[in-house]
Amino acid sequence: MTLSTTGTTRLADRAGEIRAAHAALKGRGLALDLTRGKPSPAQLDLSTGLLDIGADALGPAGAGADHRNYGGLHGLPELRALFAEVLRVPVDQLLAIGNSSLALMHDTLIHAVLFGVPGSARPWGAERTAVLCPVPGYDRHFALCEKLGIEMIPVPMGDDGPDMDEVERLAAEDPGVRAIWCVPTYSNPTGAVYGEETARRLAALPAAAPDFRILWDDAYAVHHLTDEPAAAPDILALCAEHGHPDRAFVYGSTSKITFAGAGVAFFGSSRANVDWLTGHLSRRTIGPDKINQLRHALFLRDAQGLRAHMAEHRALLRPRFDLVERVLRERLGGLGVATWSRPRGGYFVSLDVPDGCARRTVELAAEAGIRLTPAGATFPYGKDPRDRNIRIAPTYPGLDELETAMEGLAVCVLLAALERS
Amino acid sequence: MTLSTTGTTRLADRAGEIRAAHAALKGRGLALDLTRGKPSPAQLDLSTGLLDIGADALGPAGAGADHRNYGGLHGLPELRALFAEVLRVPVDQLLAIGNSSLALMHDTLIHAVLFGVPGSARPWGAERTAVLCPVPGYDRHFALCEKLGIEMIPVPMGDDGPDMDEVERLAAEDPGVRAIWCVPTYSNPTGAVYGEETARRLAALPAAAPDFRILWDDAYAVHHLTDEPAAAPDILALCAEHGHPDRAFVYGSTSKITFAGAGVAFFGSSRANVDWLTGHLSRRTIGPDKINQLRHALFLRDAQGLRAHMAEHRALLRPRFDLVERVLRERLGGLGVATWSRPRGGYFVSLDVPDGCARRTVELAAEAGIRLTPAGATFPYGKDPRDRNIRIAPTYPGLDELETAMEGLAVCVLLAALERS
Repeated sequence: MTLSTTGTTRLADRAGEIRAAHAALKGRGLALDLTRGKPSPAQLDLSTGLLDIGADALGPAGAGADHRNYGGLHGLPELRALFAEVLRVPVDQLLAIGNSSLALMHDTLIHAVLFGVPGSARPWGAERTAVLCPVPGYDRHFALCEKLGIEMIPVPMGDDGPDMDEVERLAAEDPGVRAIWCVPTYSNPTGAVYGEETARRLAALPAAAPDFRILWDDAYAVHHLTDEPAAAPDILALCAEHGHPDRAFVYGSTSKITFAGAGVAFFGSSRANVDWLTGHLSRRTIGPDKINQLRHALFLRDAQGLRAHMAEHRALLRPRFDLVERVLRERLGGLGVATWSRPRGGYFVSLDVPDGCARRTVELAAEAGIRLTPAGATFPYGKDPRDRNIRIAPTYPGLDELETAMEGLAVCVLLAALERS
Repeated sequence: MTLSTTGTTRLADRAGEIRAAHAALKGRGLALDLTRGKPSPAQLDLSTGLLDIGADALGPAGAGADHRNYGGLHGLPELRALFAEVLRVPVDQLLAIGNSSLALMHDTLIHAVLFGVPGSARPWGAERTAVLCPVPGYDRHFALCEKLGIEMIPVPMGDDGPDMDEVERLAAEDPGVRAIWCVPTYSNPTGAVYGEETARRLAALPAAAPDFRILWDDAYAVHHLTDEPAAAPDILALCAEHGHPDRAFVYGSTSKITFAGAGVAFFGSSRANVDWLTGHLSRRTIGPDKINQLRHALFLRDAQGLRAHMAEHRALLRPRFDLVERVLRERLGGLGVATWSRPRGGYFVSLDVPDGCARRTVELAAEAGIRLTPAGATFPYGKDPRDRNIRIAPTYPGLDELETAMEGLAVCVLLAALERS
């Protein structure tokens, strides 16, 4: 957004008050953190029952597949069955492996770079390789590409996914464009939910690269904040339907369902892609932690158990998101200095301040002891061309802390805008 | 070994008996498996207590480092402290991460191939890269190299490590030789223990490659079978002492201490190497499963607790190794048809049959329903140039099954030797 004349006038009228508020804020010696999308301790407490699933509950070991021993590269069938439904992947095309979907994204990309994917003429690393990045987006996706020397091309993000005209144009004309990052449900950070039409166009698009991949990171598939849960389109079915059965890599995890770090990650795709990945993974590992997977299967039980568990998360998270919305509306509403997302799920609120004001806002907040995700983090290479986007992560702090941090942030937005006007 | 004239004569005298024994063996319809070094169910039962460490025992979450949340890339300090002693790595240079040391070997090598290691002029993948492989050795090390296009150069293995004259010659004259695989304690499969002098020569050797690495896979560091436990040399200290502080990568895991697959893996090295690896890993993951690490720390407690636990493993394993030794001695001793290792620890017995007889022995065993590790598996590219080495993995089967399998194997060795004579 750009600051309107009206907004400029109004801010100028309040200059003294805003400067005083920031000075007072600095004087409070705060130490608050809105940087990362971490579950709060209260959310982690919801899964205490998982920790108490002991030897008896885990049950005797089967002869062929002792969950305590090596093997079972694909992961525990019971847990895969539950998440097959969540992630819309046929169970025999879904892997449960490791504790981090980011690691699975890393490993699929690193194997693509070194060896190519099914359909590649050569390894991605041997040719120009670019990935489309809807922006604002997820900084860890971008860090992964940067590490692997994969070029990133930003594409504007809308309410139901990226600008598909732009995606189609870039993918059709440039054979170096080999993939697109997508967070289909409650996108990080805008909360956008990919629509059926967006997904259909992604599945159908006539990419110049024969090995084009949709990197479908469904991190927030069940992380609803309302009574109208979003559902990501069935990307694997759409890709198959449009003649590109190997196009989508689906990722998910329980990191924000049970324990972050001690959860289970998933990879789903076509049979050819799953065989490709397990072929590589079989040289890396003799199998995942099936004990933890069995604990997860016993704790979450089934789709209904998972829904009930996520409703408890929602009860903890919804007041935080409501608070962010209220403070932003009360402090910044109608002033023409900010717009922000009102997510129906996920972990973030995306805040746009006037052009050229994001970095300064984050700096002013840091001066007052309020840590924010670095400005620019939601863009490839950390470069927000308009320097306007700030990602707010409201899940971790307590409500009081969050209110203090948000009130402070609002002051910083006003001061940055004032300085710029 | 080659079959002596005496051996040939003796076998010929018993030809009818040996053929009849193999025919009878085939008639028994056995289904036995001596292929892989897996702990037995009884060994896994030793760690049942680990499964019962629930929420109360895990304790309240600390403010800065909640074991249930993201973070802590280096792993849990308590568990690292315990294994720092075992693996002879300073605790601040030891990472606890993931469930598989093989995965850490994979990841270090893959990052070496893509980016090089500290001291590399270019990525390993951009130049000719060869690894010295003491033989017989571990098939999964070889599979990893093969996958990554790393050339393997076999070096003969002796009682206290590889032929160091040969290692020094190859590493000094060939800048493409960038590493050597070592299993220093109870080597897979021969049981050899690396001596101080071997380790000193490895640490000191004037490698032509400035980024030469010792891949020190101390998988069996505490897996003793006798009252005289072996201890691997302190390779990190020796390397530092000889002016090559970054030369050794140390790997270990609890896979054969607690649960195979649900254990914890370790990587230790110089500060520079650890920073190099965590720099790469930080793009891949936000941290390891610290809950499982805390369970391990609470269950194993300290060095004494670990020793006591491993003594229980030994009580289960020692009779199996004694049985293998007894059957081999009774059935093959003095005939000049086989030599074998008498390991003081670890998971394997290495059996050498007459040249050209290993593949046939494995085939004859398979015909009788006894599965053995494929002949050649203990050599790079699966090619045993003398076709004589067979790896026996006696840990998993019950004693009765093991005895049947070993008696059968002895018949197959005799028949293969007879056919060849």
